[in-house]
Amino acid sequence: MKASGCFTLPGEAGYEQLTLELAKRWGADAVRDCEGTSLSNEILEAGFDIYSTICIIRNHNEFARKHPHVQQQTFLMSKAVLSEGESMCIPLLDGFFDQQFAVNDDKEALAYYQVFDRTTNQEIPRDVWEYHKENGTVVINHAIPWHRYTVNFLAWRIWEEINMYNHVTNGWKSEHLRQLDPRYPEVQAFLRSYLEEWCLDHPHTDVVRFTSLFYNFVWIWGSDGKNRDLFSDWASYDFTVSPKALQDFSATYGYALCSEDFINQGRRNPNHITWNRKMKDYLSFTNDFVVGFAKELVAIVHSHKKQAYVFYDDSWVGMEPGGKRFSEIGFDGIIKCVFSGFEARLCASVESTPVHELRLHPYLFPVGLGGAPTFAPGGNPALDATTYWSKVRRALLRKSVDRIGLGGYLHLTTPFPDFIDAVDVIADEFRTIKELHAKGAPLCFSLKLLVLTDWGSLRSWTCGGHYHEHPDLDLINILESLSGLPFDVEFEAFDNLTKERLQQVAVVINAGFAGSSYSGGDAWCNDTLVENLTQWVHEGGVFLGVNEPSEVKGYDTLFRMAHILGVDRDDGRRLCHGRWPCETDGLGIVGKCSILEKQDIYLLDEKTKVLTSNNNSPCITCRDVNKGKGVYLSSYRVTAENTRMLQNLILYACNQLHDQFFTSDNAYVEGTWFPASKQLVVLNSSEIEQQAEICCENMSRIVQLKPFEMHIIQID
Amino acid sequence: MKASGCFTLPGEAGYEQLTLELAKRWGADAVRDCEGTSLSNEILEAGFDIYSTICIIRNHNEFARKHPHVQQQTFLMSKAVLSEGESMCIPLLDGFFDQQFAVNDDKEALAYYQVFDRTTNQEIPRDVWEYHKENGTVVINHAIPWHRYTVNFLAWRIWEEINMYNHVTNGWKSEHLRQLDPRYPEVQAFLRSYLEEWCLDHPHTDVVRFTSLFYNFVWIWGSDGKNRDLFSDWASYDFTVSPKALQDFSATYGYALCSEDFINQGRRNPNHITWNRKMKDYLSFTNDFVVGFAKELVAIVHSHKKQAYVFYDDSWVGMEPGGKRFSEIGFDGIIKCVFSGFEARLCASVESTPVHELRLHPYLFPVGLGGAPTFAPGGNPALDATTYWSKVRRALLRKSVDRIGLGGYLHLTTPFPDFIDAVDVIADEFRTIKELHAKGAPLCFSLKLLVLTDWGSLRSWTCGGHYHEHPDLDLINILESLSGLPFDVEFEAFDNLTKERLQQVAVVINAGFAGSSYSGGDAWCNDTLVENLTQWVHEGGVFLGVNEPSEVKGYDTLFRMAHILGVDRDDGRRLCHGRWPCETDGLGIVGKCSILEKQDIYLLDEKTKVLTSNNNSPCITCRDVNKGKGVYLSSYRVTAENTRMLQNLILYACNQLHDQFFTSDNAYVEGTWFPASKQLVVLNSSEIEQQAEICCENMSRIVQLKPFEMHIIQID
Repeated sequence: MKASGCFTLPGEAGYEQLTLELAKRWGADAVRDCEGTSLSNEILEAGFDIYSTICIIRNHNEFARKHPHVQQQTFLMSKAVLSEGESMCIPLLDGFFDQQFAVNDDKEALAYYQVFDRTTNQEIPRDVWEYHKENGTVVINHAIPWHRYTVNFLAWRIWEEINMYNHVTNGWKSEHLRQLDPRYPEVQAFLRSYLEEWCLDHPHTDVVRFTSLFYNFVWIWGSDGKNRDLFSDWASYDFTVSPKALQDFSATYGYALCSEDFINQGRRNPNHITWNRKMKDYLSFTNDFVVGFAKELVAIVHSHKKQAYVFYDDSWVGMEPGGKRFSEIGFDGIIKCVFSGFEARLCASVESTPVHELRLHPYLFPVGLGGAPTFAPGGNPALDATTYWSKVRRALLRKSVDRIGLGGYLHLTTPFPDFIDAVDVIADEFRTIKELHAKGAPLCFSLKLLVLTDWGSLRSWTCGGHYHEHPDLDLINILESLSGLPFDVEFEAFDNLTKERLQQVAVVINAGFAGSSYSGGDAWCNDTLVENLTQWVHEGGVFLGVNEPSEVKGYDTLFRMAHILGVDRDDGRRLCHGRWPCETDGLGIVGKCSILEKQDIYLLDEKTKVLTSNNNSPCITCRDVNKGKGVYLSSYRVTAENTRMLQNLILYACNQLHDQFFTSDNAYVEGTWFPASKQLVVLNSSEIEQQAEICCENMSRIVQLKPFEMHIIQID
Repeated sequence: MKASGCFTLPGEAGYEQLTLELAKRWGADAVRDCEGTSLSNEILEAGFDIYSTICIIRNHNEFARKHPHVQQQTFLMSKAVLSEGESMCIPLLDGFFDQQFAVNDDKEALAYYQVFDRTTNQEIPRDVWEYHKENGTVVINHAIPWHRYTVNFLAWRIWEEINMYNHVTNGWKSEHLRQLDPRYPEVQAFLRSYLEEWCLDHPHTDVVRFTSLFYNFVWIWGSDGKNRDLFSDWASYDFTVSPKALQDFSATYGYALCSEDFINQGRRNPNHITWNRKMKDYLSFTNDFVVGFAKELVAIVHSHKKQAYVFYDDSWVGMEPGGKRFSEIGFDGIIKCVFSGFEARLCASVESTPVHELRLHPYLFPVGLGGAPTFAPGGNPALDATTYWSKVRRALLRKSVDRIGLGGYLHLTTPFPDFIDAVDVIADEFRTIKELHAKGAPLCFSLKLLVLTDWGSLRSWTCGGHYHEHPDLDLINILESLSGLPFDVEFEAFDNLTKERLQQVAVVINAGFAGSSYSGGDAWCNDTLVENLTQWVHEGGVFLGVNEPSEVKGYDTLFRMAHILGVDRDDGRRLCHGRWPCETDGLGIVGKCSILEKQDIYLLDEKTKVLTSNNNSPCITCRDVNKGKGVYLSSYRVTAENTRMLQNLILYACNQLHDQFFTSDNAYVEGTWFPASKQLVVLNSSEIEQQAEICCENMSRIVQLKPFEMHIIQID
């Protein structure tokens, strides 16, 4: 008798038979609707828990038409225009997608406009420019010839971006959906009563699935199809702005923000780059508001005896599930869509919600990532599902969640029976893993790793997005490896890294390019931080730096921790300095890893051990610093071999390399030991058959695994 | 009857027959001695002009022993030492080659010592540290635990570096030669009388060949043979320092320099990185002194009816042959050793001396570059000589010099008859080229190119050293290509780039990595510079940027000329911004060039034409800016194909592509037209046979050239 439950199925009206059949086959205990699908009475009354999606700020076009001033907004910067004489004209929306944005030239919006001479990097006075409403331009009357000028302005967002994306991708003909900004009391009142009515209208709904809350992640589209994506950031706050928000902010924080704080010379404030105090204040301010109003909405849901889950995507900005206030909202569950292992850990790390659910990929949709076919000719959704699952599965073996599910159009699966088979396996494996955890936690090395970033625990297990969006970020790759490794992993921000905090951990990881939130930028100007870390390493800690760790300008070394790492970066200013040669010794731990060299890295002196190098540039190094060690990797990309090397390197640096057990001799095969149930779970995360020998305390086992197989060995 | 003359031969006592035989064969009219060789009376009296080398500040060990305080000095920075408690000790010379340096702890030297807390980047007060003479250490009594400290100190240079290099390379056993600092009046008096006597002692000498003047280029050796070369810079001033120089400087300039000005956080001031005002003042100050005293020495030489030539190498620092004051010295000739074409142009560009001579490579020595065999088993000096000559020859076709010559131990050539043959050809080709120029200048495009750097004309045709020393500098590669191309090339510093200066030129080239002297660093903070260049391009100028041209932080684009170039660099802060795709069109001019991509370069918008790209990163771009153009190259390395591409790109940007004539259809074959003599010189600069078709006004010629052949066609 197969186990069932813990599985959410996307139902689809018109395909009742298929819905019921697949629900039974996959052991679904809940059925959901999706954008573009609905559930019929036959499904609603079949005994499943019913999830109903709601995008609370969307689908209110009539209200938006009547109250246009409560639509959502953003700051935009015009293109830079070169002055060829004294008078010049800047068309504000030139280059932007005019179906997404409209100029907001209300009086209170105009007060936030700023015109910059970008040649001198100075704002120009208001009295030398004027706004021309009739054609949406700014005219500068006393420009300096051959300087470049830009205008920061407020724009209405006239098309909700998820609707826009689906609409454009699928060639929909329906009305463009707008979004309301709940900052405005009239919107709050409207949404409260709307939700009340909605709950009454949905008697079958058990779980209100919020998709997500109020503010989209930033996605600015261009007018030219060749470069549609002008700016996109899953974790920035550009789409939360309005004159009201800014007025409330200055009333609360005692100082005002201006458009340039958001525009930042046109670079905006991507979450990958360290934020200044002002932007962090603005985040807290927005988070306070979102938590407060979301709490009211959840209370309404609860008053109707329904549960409230939130989908951690699309419009998650402001709710910050890793933040201190998230629990106040009172969500009963959080749902994360996952392509990779770190996303499973991200979901699991949200401690306050009782239920954690993963929405697996592929989404049941004709096209997937980057427009490639999924449930369409040329697609291979079974392989996609299994590949994603193999990444998620190893993370679940470290830390489980409560449920999994799918989303999309169920009927699209019919021509792909192998996909249906694959989900059989996935659902079963998931329930098996969950049961193992229920009996007792898996064995883990007694080493706590601390990932040190500018975001810290607020953004645990993420670098603002999915792996495929920024595959070149070292930290996202490290997180993906760590998601399935037997280490305790915590996250800390620079501001909170006290001596006491350091005492609790064995390894500090700092990984990223200079100036990034992950390397830390100006956080490294703090001498006490350097002092504390130096002392801690001296007394036995391990500082593991990747790419451009601790880099900041102004000191004798670019890496502030160069004296610990034993390497530093040369930005060209050491072109006349000699370099120590790289004499490598893999110490038996590097295996077949591949770490890309950075040509600009040099050895500080002869005391730094080089484990691997390329073109005489060190790739992996290790340096003894009294009782501790400095470890450096010039880059990190997730591969099975690199994951194994990372584990070995950490164990080596912590003098625990000899403690390895339940580790196989094959990087593609990983073992996890559940002591309570005395079960060893062995994973083949590759698409080919693998053989491996696994050390099990006093003996070893040889296992032969099919592609992607999960195998369980009882060892008594 | 073969032409002869214009050739300087290294004579060698004990090999009189060989000297006379090769002198006749190669048409030598002058014979010189070299370090380690001497000329016998038989040679001295054979009717040749006699060049005698003199390294004026060396070979005075007895004087140095008696007057140790007049030896040359430099600032050094100790290794950084980590403080583990309150008291710590820093050994000053740890890591330095103790045969090269000794601590100068005279009272006036100690006044220049500075101790830095490199963790806080602050100098610590004098009263918390003390110098311990007995073991050459500095003890800090109240250090902050876990901070790193360094000491800047003065060191005597106790071994002249060229002697040190030859000594170590050849295993010499002779006494280490020291050097005197002519800053001191007693040294000046000593050297004046020494030179008087020397002239009297050398009645056969016609030319006193100074090698070079007073101060070595910087070469700091380490104690460990694995990293002997700690710092070397052919064009920095670190080895000119002394308490007296610094006292004189502050008396002259009204402000004082400190050791940290030279140490610069341990990075020193390599000539490749922009110098600040203080260092430029110090250069001028030293140049003034060197010119003044050198003029006195040359006057002594002239008073003995001898000529004074200077070898532009080794100890050239302070004389600055490209500077305004060089001509005051009154040298009769300048001699440059050459591996490459740009060095020939560098020599030719020194306008004030009547004679310009090239000392060709290979030097007649058992080993050459990087210790590879030359005149030793395994060496191929004939191929070396021909290869170097093929680079020099194309530069000489653009601008000739007066003489060529060799250096070293003549007897080493005996086992290499093919080398002797090769020099036959080289000497003849040189004399032919010189005669062609004498009849009238070669045809040149009427396009003036201006290379814009922080050094400007002070350092025309050089990036501080030989090509092989820093082959990755884009500008040195560009100079090598330009050295043989039919363009007028001038050099200008940022400070002197007026609107008027711009009117005189067609193309401005700015090529280098950010912060380098060649890109310009902070020079680009000057808004007027950006304004003037923008206007000039708008009115028809061509701005050609390479690698990280005009880059400086603080503005909306990293490249200040991004709006002209149409590309900018992303230092990671634009990770969330979309990129325009590269749609390439070679415009028929890129040929088989190979330009390495920079992954961090992005197109500003759709108006930038991409000529070549790699991995969607633009490599060569061109942008129309009204009547002018912005042209960008992501990197530049000299190859025949790249040289041809560069010529075509410049002509294209200047709308003169159709004007190409005397250009071949084969990048390895270049034609130069001498209108006065109606002779077309065709070069094959490759080591294989080449065929090419050359356009000659109304007709074309097909030529077949042997490896490295120079062929002359009379076209009447």
